[in-house]
Amino acid sequence: MIKRKLRMGMIGGGPGSFIGAIHRIAANMDGEIELVCGAFSSQAEKSAETGAALYLDKSRVYGSYKEMIEKESKLPDNVKMDFVSIVTPNHVHFEPSKMAMEHGFHVVLDKPATFSLAEALELKKVIDRTKKIFCLTHTYTGYPMVKQARQMVKDGLLGEIRKIYVEYPQGWLSNALEKGDHKQAHWRTDPKQSGIAGCIGDIGTHAFNLAEYVSGLQVQSICADLNIAVPGRKLDDDGAVLLRFNKNATGVLMATQIAAGEENNIKVRVYGEKGGVEWQQADNNSLLVKWLDQPMQVYRAGTGYLSSFASHNSRTPAGHPEGYLEAFANHYRNFVLTVRALANGETPKPEWVDFPSIQDGVRGMAFIENVVRSSASDKKFIPFEI
Amino acid sequence: MIKRKLRMGMIGGGPGSFIGAIHRIAANMDGEIELVCGAFSSQAEKSAETGAALYLDKSRVYGSYKEMIEKESKLPDNVKMDFVSIVTPNHVHFEPSKMAMEHGFHVVLDKPATFSLAEALELKKVIDRTKKIFCLTHTYTGYPMVKQARQMVKDGLLGEIRKIYVEYPQGWLSNALEKGDHKQAHWRTDPKQSGIAGCIGDIGTHAFNLAEYVSGLQVQSICADLNIAVPGRKLDDDGAVLLRFNKNATGVLMATQIAAGEENNIKVRVYGEKGGVEWQQADNNSLLVKWLDQPMQVYRAGTGYLSSFASHNSRTPAGHPEGYLEAFANHYRNFVLTVRALANGETPKPEWVDFPSIQDGVRGMAFIENVVRSSASDKKFIPFEI
Amino acid sequence: MIKRKLRMGMIGGGPGSFIGAIHRIAANMDGEIELVCGAFSSQAEKSAETGAALYLDKSRVYGSYKEMIEKESKLPDNVKMDFVSIVTPNHVHFEPSKMAMEHGFHVVLDKPATFSLAEALELKKVIDRTKKIFCLTHTYTGYPMVKQARQMVKDGLLGEIRKIYVEYPQGWLSNALEKGDHKQAHWRTDPKQSGIAGCIGDIGTHAFNLAEYVSGLQVQSICADLNIAVPGRKLDDDGAVLLRFNKNATGVLMATQIAAGEENNIKVRVYGEKGGVEWQQADNNSLLVKWLDQPMQVYRAGTGYLSSFASHNSRTPAGHPEGYLEAFANHYRNFVLTVRALANGETPKPEWVDFPSIQDGVRGMAFIENVVRSSASDKKFIPFEI
Amino acid sequence: MIKRKLRMGMIGGGPGSFIGAIHRIAANMDGEIELVCGAFSSQAEKSAETGAALYLDKSRVYGSYKEMIEKESKLPDNVKMDFVSIVTPNHVHFEPSKMAMEHGFHVVLDKPATFSLAEALELKKVIDRTKKIFCLTHTYTGYPMVKQARQMVKDGLLGEIRKIYVEYPQGWLSNALEKGDHKQAHWRTDPKQSGIAGCIGDIGTHAFNLAEYVSGLQVQSICADLNIAVPGRKLDDDGAVLLRFNKNATGVLMATQIAAGEENNIKVRVYGEKGGVEWQQADNNSLLVKWLDQPMQVYRAGTGYLSSFASHNSRTPAGHPEGYLEAFANHYRNFVLTVRALANGETPKPEWVDFPSIQDGVRGMAFIENVVRSSASDKKFIPFEI
Repeated sequence: MIKRKLRMGMIGGGPGSFIGAIHRIAANMDGEIELVCGAFSSQAEKSAETGAALYLDKSRVYGSYKEMIEKESKLPDNVKMDFVSIVTPNHVHFEPSKMAMEHGFHVVLDKPATFSLAEALELKKVIDRTKKIFCLTHTYTGYPMVKQARQMVKDGLLGEIRKIYVEYPQGWLSNALEKGDHKQAHWRTDPKQSGIAGCIGDIGTHAFNLAEYVSGLQVQSICADLNIAVPGRKLDDDGAVLLRFNKNATGVLMATQIAAGEENNIKVRVYGEKGGVEWQQADNNSLLVKWLDQPMQVYRAGTGYLSSFASHNSRTPAGHPEGYLEAFANHYRNFVLTVRALANGETPKPEWVDFPSIQDGVRGMAFIENVVRSSASDKKFIPFEI
Repeated sequence: MIKRKLRMGMIGGGPGSFIGAIHRIAANMDGEIELVCGAFSSQAEKSAETGAALYLDKSRVYGSYKEMIEKESKLPDNVKMDFVSIVTPNHVHFEPSKMAMEHGFHVVLDKPATFSLAEALELKKVIDRTKKIFCLTHTYTGYPMVKQARQMVKDGLLGEIRKIYVEYPQGWLSNALEKGDHKQAHWRTDPKQSGIAGCIGDIGTHAFNLAEYVSGLQVQSICADLNIAVPGRKLDDDGAVLLRFNKNATGVLMATQIAAGEENNIKVRVYGEKGGVEWQQADNNSLLVKWLDQPMQVYRAGTGYLSSFASHNSRTPAGHPEGYLEAFANHYRNFVLTVRALANGETPKPEWVDFPSIQDGVRGMAFIENVVRSSASDKKFIPFEI
Repeated sequence: MIKRKLRMGMIGGGPGSFIGAIHRIAANMDGEIELVCGAFSSQAEKSAETGAALYLDKSRVYGSYKEMIEKESKLPDNVKMDFVSIVTPNHVHFEPSKMAMEHGFHVVLDKPATFSLAEALELKKVIDRTKKIFCLTHTYTGYPMVKQARQMVKDGLLGEIRKIYVEYPQGWLSNALEKGDHKQAHWRTDPKQSGIAGCIGDIGTHAFNLAEYVSGLQVQSICADLNIAVPGRKLDDDGAVLLRFNKNATGVLMATQIAAGEENNIKVRVYGEKGGVEWQQADNNSLLVKWLDQPMQVYRAGTGYLSSFASHNSRTPAGHPEGYLEAFANHYRNFVLTVRALANGETPKPEWVDFPSIQDGVRGMAFIENVVRSSASDKKFIPFEI
Repeated sequence: MIKRKLRMGMIGGGPGSFIGAIHRIAANMDGEIELVCGAFSSQAEKSAETGAALYLDKSRVYGSYKEMIEKESKLPDNVKMDFVSIVTPNHVHFEPSKMAMEHGFHVVLDKPATFSLAEALELKKVIDRTKKIFCLTHTYTGYPMVKQARQMVKDGLLGEIRKIYVEYPQGWLSNALEKGDHKQAHWRTDPKQSGIAGCIGDIGTHAFNLAEYVSGLQVQSICADLNIAVPGRKLDDDGAVLLRFNKNATGVLMATQIAAGEENNIKVRVYGEKGGVEWQQADNNSLLVKWLDQPMQVYRAGTGYLSSFASHNSRTPAGHPEGYLEAFANHYRNFVLTVRALANGETPKPEWVDFPSIQDGVRGMAFIENVVRSSASDKKFIPFEI
């Protein structure tokens, strides 16, 4: 019986990392996880620097993820980490995930899953074989009102779904930041670290995942147009995709990093025969529910009338806003609840296992590859292939 | 010297018409126009009914537009109408416009310009030949904050334009209203009255016009996907178009009439290298101006810091909201100011001639035909041809 | 039987007037009123200038309201004006209203009713005696969603009303504009033209009227605190009032003209046992309806589910925003519908007679005098006396 | 040199507590604090239950705060807690705070400071005497955009401050929940646990604190009106206060718990000669900055143009919303940074010591007592006395 905090090791997240700090806050928040070790950088002194700043025991701060996984796997059961959180650039996703699972550790992995679809499919096999628990941190499906939206669609309240709009507008890459020393800009625009896609991989996958999650539908064919707006950039910084889903729904996905002045307002709208739902990160505690012939309703996080999936993922009463870090923390908490339940021979609740899986990861990588293929093609729609 | 209200005759706008009443309010509002005659319906008694409700002299209420144009043209100069306002379904746009101009009358015409691109091109020739003043009522470019947006783009405040999103979501055709006695639904879904397009012609053209107006750019190639979401409907009720503009800008246009719960929130976003502007009808008195590294600004109608194009088209101090009817009225007022100036041998101000022209009409009809052609094609992008 | 436009004469509204132009647009909009004459200024040449700009027959443009009323009253019935619209500063409200009614003309009067409560009470007697129709243009109760709010309260949907917040924040008098040649600032801060109150009379009365209209309650005692924030100003430019209504409701009224950066966002919130309604001018086509344990609803102008009082006062489909001028026009239209119905021996509908009356005017003037008295008192609450 | 997480003990926060869980999340979030012990309830088994749920060592879960403070004070320096977090109802604030400090522990205390002003003044003496660090968790001043507002006022950007509106509307006590088993409702409406005030103590103090914090001004006299809207309730559930600040500013404070349908949208508006700032919890990552003759600006959390006080208190890039828990966590983090700096003989940065102090606590308790006194008085304004 596990009745304790789960012990986490981190791979990546050293100096200059944005997402590492986010993962740590998300893991800390609910008091269910303890960071016990890390390989924060491939440069040992940087790893040590971060480890010290996090008050880790020096003996648990490693110079490489390989060292960490190997050494941790040999520690006593009541000491060693339970899972790793991997927050490196995309080209360092697959190997540490695989190695960790093969050494008995569960894995939380930042999105997109891998460097390529082939890697994602391979990773799925590893997961299936090792039976380890895997969580992919597509943040936005951790928001309670996104879960509420999904549930209302699932319950048929909107009727058959007909139309889906999803967009993720950013402006931070309006200039060629990658030519300076902007670490985030650098790796995200570098094919060697990011893979074959820039914007559409970085944030387009979030939009894609959100659209499929809320609608409960799957994209079946696409027509994509990727652009490079900033001269000299190597990967797309802007794109739009026409979508065809199963069950006759259609949609549009827009992702851009050159909409100067935009922050991170990912937004999804799903319309059925009877009404529609609209959610955007800028007002994340609200869900607009629109009806054909009745007043729009504004569902709010923390209220008493929400589905169990929304309620389970809230911490504050209505009107005390939660946000991005809490959405992130929801994935960690649900991952931990699931890991612990399974370890204790219990069946995790449906609300707990509702975190992004390798299936999401595979579809996300397929999205990237299909979009890039479509964008290069003169043909309008191409089938979404995995 | 014309120093009096201009005299207007109306074609269409009888019982059950939505847009006829809108045009009359728009024409009334500023006290510059007097409705003196009308052929409100092709059924004489309906025309008479409307004429009576509008307190018109019976002798000036006609049973057909032909009768009206002929008879009015023979009235004394100090009595006869100065211009006609044509608010009929699309298939009755070209003939009355042509006839009116050939009989010496200026024309205000509801959009889209005509039933087909060929008609629009023909109409342009009539206008060029008769030298009559022609106004096409693409309402949304009449909003002061839309004009402000255009001016800021034109002044180069955003740098080179890179990205344009424009959308017009409606939900009113979510059900097959045209199978009942809903007059609006009926003609708008009927190819004989609307032409080859439904949604994309009815509201897609508004979105297209708004995007070109604000950005100052022109669409050069498109990739369109039109849908019929409601079974049995004869024309598209939903569509999306990927856009490529001159000067390397790209964009997305979305128009739908089956987004259940949506009203009429047409919205445009234009981004340049340095910032972006965002305008939507639901908050029509505001213009969001976003900057790469500075706080967003909210420009407001009726304030002292606006361009002359915005100020000229406002009637109230900031915070006393104007709306759709005033935007509509701006076109009428500018049309009248232009007609009167030219009649008096004066040069109309740039702010006055800033109403939609036959060029807008031709491009709008070309948009419809190109979109329909693209939607039927397997090829991704096709050139925008006129 | 009157089956024609009603003929309007205007008193005030000459060069530099803000509200005169507003009244004319409001009167024009629906094609039910014809401006036939005016005494636009006490200076004859200014009156003539305005008359010419409005295309009036010179013979119907007068040098004083006395001249106008006298001469018009002697014109033939099928020529002379039916009613006057009085848009002068407050000290020129009572006399022309009285004279007009005594000469057989109905009256539309800008708010506040008069220069003093005594005048308002006297005016009420004139109205009662002459049986003329009188409309006071408290604009904000002309908004359809304000009428919807009132109706929902009246229907008991919120339960017993407990709390009312109303506010009218402006910033335009943050500087001593009256020391320059700002006509609006000048008369509104001049006790000889405005009366004993500045801000609380100019906009506080609007807030007061809106609160009583929506809640259906009446203020019974008040505790007021008026301020002069700008040194040297002669009348209050800021104030707050604690309110006690009948039926145990309480409230707060805030009015200010020195909230720098504020426009005209008058806002009212009314809460009952079960829920609350919130309306503000900045989003005038929406009414927020909040419920204790259910999602908030957003009622929208132009939809099918509204009360007849809201629907009757709309001109456009949902999502095509109306605004301030339409709210203003609603009072004119309802006034005209009532005048015509009564002239024709018909009973006007409840929706038609729903425009502000002399009762509103008397209560508004009483509000001013009670507030000024309370503000000067050391006592906390004083009874609201008429 | 302290280079480790600080060790926290908690008093209160057992089963049914709302605020205890909030404090724990806030303390966890940044990885700077470790919860090591607790006296979560005055009932030992309930305390044990909570301790177990939090994975605490049984030996550090105590049956009373007295036991905890005594026993912890005797533990070795490298084991014992560094500070206590006190989250009990108001009547159990003073004693444990005093005892903790007298035993050498720093204190984080939930607001309002104490049961009475006398206690607060006494507590201040204890703090002055023991030199312990004390933090009062007035959550809302922990928001980065509130800090930005304060800084802009302080920098004189708005000119002299003239007007302050602050409001805290809630609806959750619209019914007599305290008659059921609603723990929160029970103690908050019970004079024995809450003190002499209900609503005005619970949330009015937050509003008061926020107004003084942002404006940098101090209330000097007040005119209050407290109400009990729900029959049978023992303490006020609604109130409004007219405020007079130093430097001639005036204001209005509104706090209510019976505005049915309202959540927790505390909002403050501060206006100076040149402009105003507006912040509300519902949109906590934005600060509206309004200017007399320029477009409103929307300052956003996480951007590069903010003051150091705002930036220091952000964790995410612009557009990834933070919220209530992060605001709360900011107080904890700043408290810890200050404690650690002082322990290490360093001078804490101005940004670190910017958390609510006992001065805020004393003023808050004075606010409660002055408001209750004013509300009971027939006199309009009374001086704000401490």
